[in-house]
Amino acid sequence: MKKIYNIGLIGFGTIGAGVVETFNRNLNLMEQKVEAKINLKKVVDLDIETDRGVEVDRNILSTDVNDILEDPEIDIVIELIGGYEPAKSFILKAMSNGKHVVTANKALLAKHWEEILETADKNNVRICFEASVGGGIPLLGPLNESLGANHIQSIYGIINGTANYILTKMTEEGLDFEEVLREAQERGYAEQDPTFDIEGHDTAQKLIILTILGFGTYIEQDKFHVEGISKIKQEDIEFIKNEMGYSIKLLAISKIEDGELEVRVHPTLIPQNHLLASVNDVFNGVYIVGDIVGPVMMYGQGAGMMPTASAVVGDCLDIIGNMGRKGIYGPTTSEVKQIKDIEDIKSKYYLRLTAVDKPGVLHTISGILSKYNISIEAVTQKKRDEGQEVPIFMVMHEALEKNMQNAIKEINSLDFIRDDTLFIRVLEE
Amino acid sequence: MKKIYNIGLIGFGTIGAGVVETFNRNLNLMEQKVEAKINLKKVVDLDIETDRGVEVDRNILSTDVNDILEDPEIDIVIELIGGYEPAKSFILKAMSNGKHVVTANKALLAKHWEEILETADKNNVRICFEASVGGGIPLLGPLNESLGANHIQSIYGIINGTANYILTKMTEEGLDFEEVLREAQERGYAEQDPTFDIEGHDTAQKLIILTILGFGTYIEQDKFHVEGISKIKQEDIEFIKNEMGYSIKLLAISKIEDGELEVRVHPTLIPQNHLLASVNDVFNGVYIVGDIVGPVMMYGQGAGMMPTASAVVGDCLDIIGNMGRKGIYGPTTSEVKQIKDIEDIKSKYYLRLTAVDKPGVLHTISGILSKYNISIEAVTQKKRDEGQEVPIFMVMHEALEKNMQNAIKEINSLDFIRDDTLFIRVLEE
Repeated sequence: MKKIYNIGLIGFGTIGAGVVETFNRNLNLMEQKVEAKINLKKVVDLDIETDRGVEVDRNILSTDVNDILEDPEIDIVIELIGGYEPAKSFILKAMSNGKHVVTANKALLAKHWEEILETADKNNVRICFEASVGGGIPLLGPLNESLGANHIQSIYGIINGTANYILTKMTEEGLDFEEVLREAQERGYAEQDPTFDIEGHDTAQKLIILTILGFGTYIEQDKFHVEGISKIKQEDIEFIKNEMGYSIKLLAISKIEDGELEVRVHPTLIPQNHLLASVNDVFNGVYIVGDIVGPVMMYGQGAGMMPTASAVVGDCLDIIGNMGRKGIYGPTTSEVKQIKDIEDIKSKYYLRLTAVDKPGVLHTISGILSKYNISIEAVTQKKRDEGQEVPIFMVMHEALEKNMQNAIKEINSLDFIRDDTLFIRVLEE
Repeated sequence: MKKIYNIGLIGFGTIGAGVVETFNRNLNLMEQKVEAKINLKKVVDLDIETDRGVEVDRNILSTDVNDILEDPEIDIVIELIGGYEPAKSFILKAMSNGKHVVTANKALLAKHWEEILETADKNNVRICFEASVGGGIPLLGPLNESLGANHIQSIYGIINGTANYILTKMTEEGLDFEEVLREAQERGYAEQDPTFDIEGHDTAQKLIILTILGFGTYIEQDKFHVEGISKIKQEDIEFIKNEMGYSIKLLAISKIEDGELEVRVHPTLIPQNHLLASVNDVFNGVYIVGDIVGPVMMYGQGAGMMPTASAVVGDCLDIIGNMGRKGIYGPTTSEVKQIKDIEDIKSKYYLRLTAVDKPGVLHTISGILSKYNISIEAVTQKKRDEGQEVPIFMVMHEALEKNMQNAIKEINSLDFIRDDTLFIRVLEE
């Protein structure tokens, strides 16, 4: 007789319902692959009355999480309630009770990684979290397994569907940020409070996870630069697209050079012939460069009920198919000697200044840039409107970030500058 | 003390040298990941004198393959000599002697899959072949593992770098097929006899492997439609790009609908906003649709010394990290009830006719198409040259392939048609 593996699911929301639906639809296929019986034994949620739109045996529903955590027959706990508490307590208790854990909880992992990993190690169980970054896209598995022979050199990720949708619509339809955001909210692509997505915090949490697996280094969220897309205007998009031939994406970057790790999240100009520039709408794409394989990219739906469920259930199969295997969470000896401060990076820059249109403006600005050792590649002032505010678009050759920041500070303090200068970094591989 | 795993490498050519180089560079990283010692114990080639440009202990070189096949200490055999024989005999013997096998030999797998799988099963060893499709791109692993919860619905692959390079250059530089081919040969991107790549045979072999893993079905190469790119002219590229807004790619297609499997290789028109249209130059991309996850795509370098070595060594790590695990080679129970004949597929079509320019031509052609129940979406005849040969470009609405083939046959037999009519299928998802 085949071994039976029992699974307990905590959290019967959208993704939880997707997981139940996946087991309903494809259990046979999965059982054949792992040559074992798989039994969704218990589903726990505070609300077990609401119809989730999926078929479920009412006898396996419970409101008591201990029906999972304390059941010695349960081998794998899926945590899908999200947030820090009680998710963290549940996960730690599950692991202490010898259960493997599958989660999509990026916030928790990004904040409490060390404690969670330690608990998993101590109890000789695995924690799997493919669903926490890029939804259903095969990403963390390949990073650990297929690319196992590689030292990872860089990871560039478009990993927030909301931000990517907004930037795509601004580019394709010529609309303003606020307009697109409103439409995205109406279509359910953006939260009522969209801060978490559009200011880069969600991207940052996912980048923390990618950085652990890619570089064996855990970095806290307040230790690196995180910048969102809310300051980008339609005039930026137009100039970047039409005059420069670039796309703009909210990019998560993690890369190593000579033992120095750069970790940052910010809007980034990407050449239109780069594959990342083709990652549009709510889709996600992660571009990884390994020292042996060169560049690879994984692409797909980074969120949503079924794509995320695909990753969650895939993790369960991984655990069942590899029982007794230890978890791999990136290289065990990190090559990272130091985290590079954003001030010390070098980049090309796009700038948009808002200046009063009068003679001498460019002379003053170029003087400041020159003082900070920054060379101008191009300047465009399209509108002429003497005495009025006009946008000036500039592209800078590679410069040191610290110099750029100081130059911008000085430029912003000029009496003819009427708004904070926007500067956006350019992807250079 | 850590367990030592011994590896024997058969074939010290380009990829073999890449494998040696990968072990040279990244052995520490790998040993830490799998928590074991890895020892490249023997490298066998008929020629062990030529300098391969990589550091190797001369004591591990041998010309006698039995130094690997008969060495009871060797756990994993890497086969990189390619071709049918003696590769097949070596692999079968290695497995009979209880050794796991890693290979990049797509030709062999595509032809002798059943015998190889049977031998692996009988001897309780694994055969791993991530490198056989898409070089270093994580592809077969994710298909089996990360997407394990999915019934695969369709696979679309750009998996021949040579063909893709030629089509990309024709598109970007406006050159003719022969010109680009010559350049590709000079740059080493195309063989002196390029038939295998440009006529789709290489793509077909890889598609056989993808079809095994995606659909659990082995199909022989002479059982499906394989068509290359050598008939495509610059005027096709121009029309398709500028008038239709499509890209043209040599596409491997494997998809299932209601138990009927379509397997085919042919040039295909792809909308320019589809991610596959951005897979350019020598790069490969495989677009997979699962019933749970939706679409995902994997992208990277489909060939070359180091990318391919990355996959070969990744397979070794997979075997070492999962000792005792059975191999997974797609769904064990295939849903495929029938292989659909190319004549029974439906598609939109692009046509290029070469006709003598005279009144009534279009009337006759449209009459034939109409007789076969084929509707015209657009017709363009750009050149006017009464009495001379001119190209006529046509786009058809969805039609049955059998009807299209019959219509083309009838059209080709018309006295004013001066060359075989080219027809290219259009990707519709």
